[in-house]
Amino acid sequence: MTRYHQPAPELVIDRWFNCEPPLSIGALRGRVVVIEAFQMLCPGCVAHGLPQAQRINDTFPVSDVVVLGLHTVFEHHDAMSPVSLQAFLHEYRVTFPVAVDQADGSDIPRTMRAYGMRGTPTLLLIDAVGRLRQQWFGQVSDLTVGAEIMRLVQERKLGSELTWPEDNESSAALCDNNGCSI
Amino acid sequence: MTRYHQPAPELVIDRWFNCEPPLSIGALRGRVVVIEAFQMLCPGCVAHGLPQAQRINDTFPVSDVVVLGLHTVFEHHDAMSPVSLQAFLHEYRVTFPVAVDQADGSDIPRTMRAYGMRGTPTLLLIDAVGRLRQQWFGQVSDLTVGAEIMRLVQERKLGSELTWPEDNESSAALCDNNGCSI
Amino acid sequence: MTRYHQPAPELVIDRWFNCEPPLSIGALRGRVVVIEAFQMLCPGCVAHGLPQAQRINDTFPVSDVVVLGLHTVFEHHDAMSPVSLQAFLHEYRVTFPVAVDQADGSDIPRTMRAYGMRGTPTLLLIDAVGRLRQQWFGQVSDLTVGAEIMRLVQERKLGSELTWPEDNESSAALCDNNGCSI
Amino acid sequence: MTRYHQPAPELVIDRWFNCEPPLSIGALRGRVVVIEAFQMLCPGCVAHGLPQAQRINDTFPVSDVVVLGLHTVFEHHDAMSPVSLQAFLHEYRVTFPVAVDQADGSDIPRTMRAYGMRGTPTLLLIDAVGRLRQQWFGQVSDLTVGAEIMRLVQERKLGSELTWPEDNESSAALCDNNGCSI
Repeated sequence: MTRYHQPAPELVIDRWFNCEPPLSIGALRGRVVVIEAFQMLCPGCVAHGLPQAQRINDTFPVSDVVVLGLHTVFEHHDAMSPVSLQAFLHEYRVTFPVAVDQADGSDIPRTMRAYGMRGTPTLLLIDAVGRLRQQWFGQVSDLTVGAEIMRLVQERKLGSELTWPEDNESSAALCDNNGCSI
Repeated sequence: MTRYHQPAPELVIDRWFNCEPPLSIGALRGRVVVIEAFQMLCPGCVAHGLPQAQRINDTFPVSDVVVLGLHTVFEHHDAMSPVSLQAFLHEYRVTFPVAVDQADGSDIPRTMRAYGMRGTPTLLLIDAVGRLRQQWFGQVSDLTVGAEIMRLVQERKLGSELTWPEDNESSAALCDNNGCSI
Repeated sequence: MTRYHQPAPELVIDRWFNCEPPLSIGALRGRVVVIEAFQMLCPGCVAHGLPQAQRINDTFPVSDVVVLGLHTVFEHHDAMSPVSLQAFLHEYRVTFPVAVDQADGSDIPRTMRAYGMRGTPTLLLIDAVGRLRQQWFGQVSDLTVGAEIMRLVQERKLGSELTWPEDNESSAALCDNNGCSI
Repeated sequence: MTRYHQPAPELVIDRWFNCEPPLSIGALRGRVVVIEAFQMLCPGCVAHGLPQAQRINDTFPVSDVVVLGLHTVFEHHDAMSPVSLQAFLHEYRVTFPVAVDQADGSDIPRTMRAYGMRGTPTLLLIDAVGRLRQQWFGQVSDLTVGAEIMRLVQERKLGSELTWPEDNESSAALCDNNGCSI
């Protein structure tokens, strides 16, 4: 009855805003990680995705849930440079950590490619042992997101008092010195 | 570390809409019960509370979560009779079961009084063993509601595969032939 | 170049709320009259029509524009009695005058029939000489409503300093001691 | 009874998007001109100002009302270059003409300074003879904007069939070969 979930690919990042030192999925093991993949000139990200990420950040305690932004630029690269992003984050009062996905010479940056994202906004939920549990492209309701985040929080809390067998296995494969990866 | 939660007072109902036969908290044991206490002429209920209840109803499977409306009229009694309520439910396309809280000769109807509600809208969350777990007066965000509902769903699912000691005790006290009560 | 506009049928009213003494279209000659025809249990009226009417009331000076509500009940008559309406107006803080359209033994009340309304909400604009100039069924944008109201206000203001020939004719036919009528 | 209105300062523009050839207030004489001054990274502009400008553009016939955007960057200049603006206009589907206000070596660009704007968004209404009639900083309701635009449209239409004395005077001063200026 245990479904198998893929380990979440590690973030490959050029630069971080709103955090010091750099974060990684591996370093956040033990907490649920919510990643909002966005582009600063994507209307759906600005109107829906980022405000929802900020609400998640403001609703759950950081000891349970960590919210990250991921700037996955796959078009208009000149228009969405880190300089523009920094001004954007300042003006839109985004307070959670935001990472710039690393270009690989193609239009699609590395982390975006690793997750097979179809576009922006994409919302990722990663559980406390580093497995990718949800990946939504486009809008998803707050009710659903709140419920799915709590599902992962509760798994951890209720599971850790008991035994959670599949964790022990998968955790070995998930992380090395550089963070967690496939 | 186990917090004590009060058993949810049983509903005292004059009449049901959208369901056959009548429901009770006792009869819904095993599922999470969400109750939206409202008045049909309460603007906050119409604009926020009831649409949120409908979204909850549409988001969670009825095998896990049951949504009920509770018409707790404490003012303008002549204006919010069951005849008016029936038209209201029809026009607003409320599809989940709605109960009319029973008057006791005072302004405050019986179930509203039993829960110590401060007004409408009030949203109640009752867990799968019949305990009152949340009672919000006024607006509460979808993120929080979604998370708190899933907390109760997960307790049941994860708990029932293990042992959930406080359930066995409290369940005895919660229910009799007439439903669940203190 | 002068288009012919029908005189607005006079209101046939059972009862007024929020005003003393009763109003009529005839008595409001010289001002633009905006009428929001609604039913208290019509979701589109509650969500859009009435808030828009209140915004109109709050935006334009009453010396230029008078906003009236018209309760045109054509279904669920028992559920939308004057007693229910009074509570509704109180709870929804409707401050402009509201008239109850007079039943004629059929489902459709008299004023609603006289205007040939197709349902609720319907927004009527009547110019300063009592002619029906706009009749919108359903939603209409604030931009359009604001513009069309000002069109009528400006006609009056700019027109009255000049001569406004068609007024003199039509005004004779519009009004008698009982108000203005066809 | 005639109030004096200032001639609207002419636009001083580096570059136009969505139009060919360049526009000017002078060249638009005879029509009402609505100018939305914005910055692409100003949240209030993106959420309210630009959608309102687009609605105005879609509501009024272009023979009566011309809507222009004016990119008045006074902060984060590197982040809001014309390259970034072009991508922004594409992604946000802004279809009306947009001008880039010309820098003068200070933080405040030339047109913004000439109008004494306090920030963005600022909405300007210019009448058919080139006078500045409204200048709103921040949000203003669609009802008010619709009404004030129609006031200017009607002045023109009703006025031109009569005589509109102050126009003749002021129009002489407003325009030369280069457009209209003070």
